[in-house]
Amino acid sequence: MDISIITYVIGVSLCIEGILMVVPILCAIAYGESIMPFVLTGLICFVIALPFTRKKPAAGALFSKEGYVATALTWIALAFTGMLPFLFSGSIQSVYDAVFETISGYTTTGASILTDVEALPKGVLMWRSFMHWIGGMGILVFMLALVPFTGGTQMNIMKAESPGPSISKLVPRASDSAKILYELYGALTVLTILVLLVLGMPLFDTLCITFGAAGTGGFSVLNTGCSTYTIPQQVVITVAMIAFGVNFNFYYLLLVKKNRDAFKMEEVRWYLLIILASILLIVIDLFAHGIYTSLPLAVNDAAFHVGSIITTTGYATKDLNDWPNLSQGILILLMFIGACAGSTGGGLKVSRVLLLFRAYKRELAIALHPNIVKRVHMDGKPVEESIIQNTGSYLFIYILIFVVSVLIVSLDGESWVTTFTAVAATYNNIGPGFDVVGTMGNYSSLSDLSKVVLSADMLIGRLEIFPIMLLFSKAVWKRF
Amino acid sequence: MDISIITYVIGVSLCIEGILMVVPILCAIAYGESIMPFVLTGLICFVIALPFTRKKPAAGALFSKEGYVATALTWIALAFTGMLPFLFSGSIQSVYDAVFETISGYTTTGASILTDVEALPKGVLMWRSFMHWIGGMGILVFMLALVPFTGGTQMNIMKAESPGPSISKLVPRASDSAKILYELYGALTVLTILVLLVLGMPLFDTLCITFGAAGTGGFSVLNTGCSTYTIPQQVVITVAMIAFGVNFNFYYLLLVKKNRDAFKMEEVRWYLLIILASILLIVIDLFAHGIYTSLPLAVNDAAFHVGSIITTTGYATKDLNDWPNLSQGILILLMFIGACAGSTGGGLKVSRVLLLFRAYKRELAIALHPNIVKRVHMDGKPVEESIIQNTGSYLFIYILIFVVSVLIVSLDGESWVTTFTAVAATYNNIGPGFDVVGTMGNYSSLSDLSKVVLSADMLIGRLEIFPIMLLFSKAVWKRF
Repeated sequence: MDISIITYVIGVSLCIEGILMVVPILCAIAYGESIMPFVLTGLICFVIALPFTRKKPAAGALFSKEGYVATALTWIALAFTGMLPFLFSGSIQSVYDAVFETISGYTTTGASILTDVEALPKGVLMWRSFMHWIGGMGILVFMLALVPFTGGTQMNIMKAESPGPSISKLVPRASDSAKILYELYGALTVLTILVLLVLGMPLFDTLCITFGAAGTGGFSVLNTGCSTYTIPQQVVITVAMIAFGVNFNFYYLLLVKKNRDAFKMEEVRWYLLIILASILLIVIDLFAHGIYTSLPLAVNDAAFHVGSIITTTGYATKDLNDWPNLSQGILILLMFIGACAGSTGGGLKVSRVLLLFRAYKRELAIALHPNIVKRVHMDGKPVEESIIQNTGSYLFIYILIFVVSVLIVSLDGESWVTTFTAVAATYNNIGPGFDVVGTMGNYSSLSDLSKVVLSADMLIGRLEIFPIMLLFSKAVWKRF
Repeated sequence: MDISIITYVIGVSLCIEGILMVVPILCAIAYGESIMPFVLTGLICFVIALPFTRKKPAAGALFSKEGYVATALTWIALAFTGMLPFLFSGSIQSVYDAVFETISGYTTTGASILTDVEALPKGVLMWRSFMHWIGGMGILVFMLALVPFTGGTQMNIMKAESPGPSISKLVPRASDSAKILYELYGALTVLTILVLLVLGMPLFDTLCITFGAAGTGGFSVLNTGCSTYTIPQQVVITVAMIAFGVNFNFYYLLLVKKNRDAFKMEEVRWYLLIILASILLIVIDLFAHGIYTSLPLAVNDAAFHVGSIITTTGYATKDLNDWPNLSQGILILLMFIGACAGSTGGGLKVSRVLLLFRAYKRELAIALHPNIVKRVHMDGKPVEESIIQNTGSYLFIYILIFVVSVLIVSLDGESWVTTFTAVAATYNNIGPGFDVVGTMGNYSSLSDLSKVVLSADMLIGRLEIFPIMLLFSKAVWKRF
């Protein structure tokens, strides 16, 4: 393995993180707060990055293996540097908590160990939400968009960092794809900010909430979550969350005027269909249990939480522990399905579920006619068998990691609902679960062991398992 | 599709069921109870079977499709005739309950809607437990062993009824394989009966408990489950359950003196390893929570319930709701893993989990070296890619059916632990779950809708999904 390219990628990423400290610094200045936590963090990033970035690596060295390892190690490095503002500002005392909160930020989970977010300096809150924005589209994709990288195998980094069963290049060059992705991402973000400002949301809230919605993160800046925002503001947040859960290929196709291709994307159609069906079922369930009497309010709350959870954002306006079983069950199911591939959302991804369902349909056909030869199709094109195979294995290892995590977290002795949904909500990068870790609760009462496991789950979930698991593979390290 | 072979198979199976009424009839006579419920049931079976069995079907007509459909419809027919003794004897009033109890019997689930089993006539209890024995190895396998079937495609019936990702023929002819399986099954059953009798268990209990252990069913004949049996008797039950969860190929290999091949079977080795590891972890957990002070007692109870649950039997000696989280979590995990393929147990099967794990390991290797060509191996032999593909799809549809079932059962408004484990325990053919449906509870309080769903789950789980799902496939019915 070529270690020079890996250290180089880590180094450049840390430099970018250091530069990005300018965002919370500006915020801290605006609110007259100390900028030292961010300045210090930035300096530390540069100091660590210095030896890593002095030598440019040889061209074209970024093979698949290096792509995965570089991605995994970069994200781990970012977790440990990104937490420094929390510690330096005294906002969080425990390193376990700080790591948890930082990974929760970068992985766009939005699970928090804070019991009183309003007590934090605005600059720290801004950094916390800004991590969502960076982590949503990916810091390495950001790097590819910015840094003139040599060699033609940068796609291996995008492959490792971007969610979904397969990466479809927008354009042949990875760096061009990365630029287009961040341009679309930026444009949609600005649009959301403008609309929320027009609707009268305060600037600070607007920025933080938009960063969270765009990255499908879910850190809120108020102890009451999003419940204090007006209905129109909530509707905009709902639409924004759902929009950022759409495969960005969709927007690219619209951009290049291939509208027909865009609307033919089966993943996007199923994603929207699942959302509509879930809202409908939940509204019926809420009415059947007499929890709502106003249809518009029920639809608004159902849509908000369906959008929030399927996109794995995790914003909330209500205590979902009060909702009936079926509604809770649907939301828990949505946690696992997740958003579209190629979006900023987490979970299994709609396209994986769709692929698996079609592979199952093929097995049914094979059971009837054992000698039949049939390909699985998506968007009218045959899917490579290797992708189907990989998706089946992904499902298995996904479940295995989930189960092991649940068993370890169960040592805390919390209720099964807390234990199960804590893992589901972190692993799928949602944020809040149910019971103790519900929408109006937080993760502060869990043990350090559980926090470490859930932090790992957030990272494993965000990077879709393989990059992290490869770090534990002998084959990766044997050539040193 | 050739419908004559399907009706013929159903007819023969009903005849066999009718003849098997002799078992509860003998029991009823011994206890001076009415034999009418069983005589009537037997007559009804013969009457229904009469038109079906008059014409022998054309030879060699049993293709894959017919094998699945015949298996599914036979099991459904048996569920509706097997319940008649419950209704005729007045032991169960509701048809929903009777169907539930009967499917629970035949599918070797052992989930019960009875609140007071001791109040039932002995003959009815005997029939209830005897269904476990028949359903364990499969009534169609029984038929193949008995009836001189024409044509060389009977393997399609064994394939549809026998559990596991692939069927390994013991010997070339399916009917010979079926005979050997039932001989081994019978011999082990007799052995268990003899040992329990020597240890002083009453004859009636011995027969019923052995039928349940052999079929990995789990209906008990006492309201207190197995807790009143002596420790040595419990140990024998533990060993018996675990023995019947072993792939019967293992016993066949021992029988033909291929001891080395037998002990090389990776599934059996992993099965035993999982059992030992689970017992160890549970004993530690029980001690850590101060629930036991005696090591032998803790080991006995841990081994009993681990053996009971991984083999999907479901016998119990303790109220597991009192056990700590980790122990409960391990047992819930074992519910899903299940026993070996080619045994009488349910669940996913150890070999499927093993296959999936190895397929995942291969994906890791592919992530490192995208062009690598690697086969998945089992017992030293390469596994066909089609089996791996099928196993991945199996996992997906398995989960999908599980999730839909949980959502429907959640309408009852029971706790999530009840809802989740009720589905897990029926779908995987275990019997008791946790909370309301726990080892000292039962399924009586659930709604009729839930009972229908759980009955379907038992059947779908026992037949490993495909036979039942094919009934809903247009392709099966279009040629009529």
